[in-house]
Amino acid sequence: MTMKSFTTTVARPLEDVEARVRVALQEQAFGVLTEIDVAATLHDKLGVERSPLKILGTCNPHFAQRALEIDPSVSLLLPCNVVLETTSDGTRVAIVDPRALMDDPAFSSLAEEAAGRLQSVVEGLYVDEEPDQER
Amino acid sequence: MTMKSFTTTVARPLEDVEARVRVALQEQAFGVLTEIDVAATLHDKLGVERSPLKILGTCNPHFAQRALEIDPSVSLLLPCNVVLETTSDGTRVAIVDPRALMDDPAFSSLAEEAAGRLQSVVEGLYVDEEPDQER
Repeated sequence: MTMKSFTTTVARPLEDVEARVRVALQEQAFGVLTEIDVAATLHDKLGVERSPLKILGTCNPHFAQRALEIDPSVSLLLPCNVVLETTSDGTRVAIVDPRALMDDPAFSSLAEEAAGRLQSVVEGLYVDEEPDQER
Repeated sequence: MTMKSFTTTVARPLEDVEARVRVALQEQAFGVLTEIDVAATLHDKLGVERSPLKILGTCNPHFAQRALEIDPSVSLLLPCNVVLETTSDGTRVAIVDPRALMDDPAFSSLAEEAAGRLQSVVEGLYVDEEPDQER
């Protein structure tokens, strides 16, 4: 896949990491508008057993409004996905880089600003971790 | 924006068109996992008045499972957005073309199949319309 993202792995259970991600998003003025428990959905619909996987859809209303004013078809790409997945090392977090979603030059300053904030969310997650748990 | 989509405009109110879209998605085995009332959210958060705009997130569990097996990072791009917007002609419907989301050759047969189903959803919406209301 070619979709760029900000990623890190935190040596904590998914529930704990999700709570920290939600606080960090809020600090950057990003709300969580949608939530999909992918593992639970696939279990319910197909009986598939897999490792926990959740997708949160996040959006900053100011950025969304500005983007929609530039080009209404940006709604095909909103919100930004925050993916949380249980791995052998803990919980992997990946947030879509908005610069990859909004690759038109008209969006560049907006996408840069949004990207900076979402990158801060990911970077903030390992501030309290020991170095050997970071990557 | 470069995101390809299947689109049509139906000369009916958004609520009616949304109901038909949901039935048509279900007939193609696509569930609606998320729903964002963009206009209401922007009104609540920013006091902005705008025309009705909703984003439904749709997914077929079989396709999602197959895609995740091919490449777990597809979760950055799920679900497929269905955008409903009130226009002067009625309600415009746009569904993301999954071939644009999953542009890696590994996904081509899966993306083709999903695209065919979502295109059928959009095409089915104007079957009962008069020709002059279709486009």
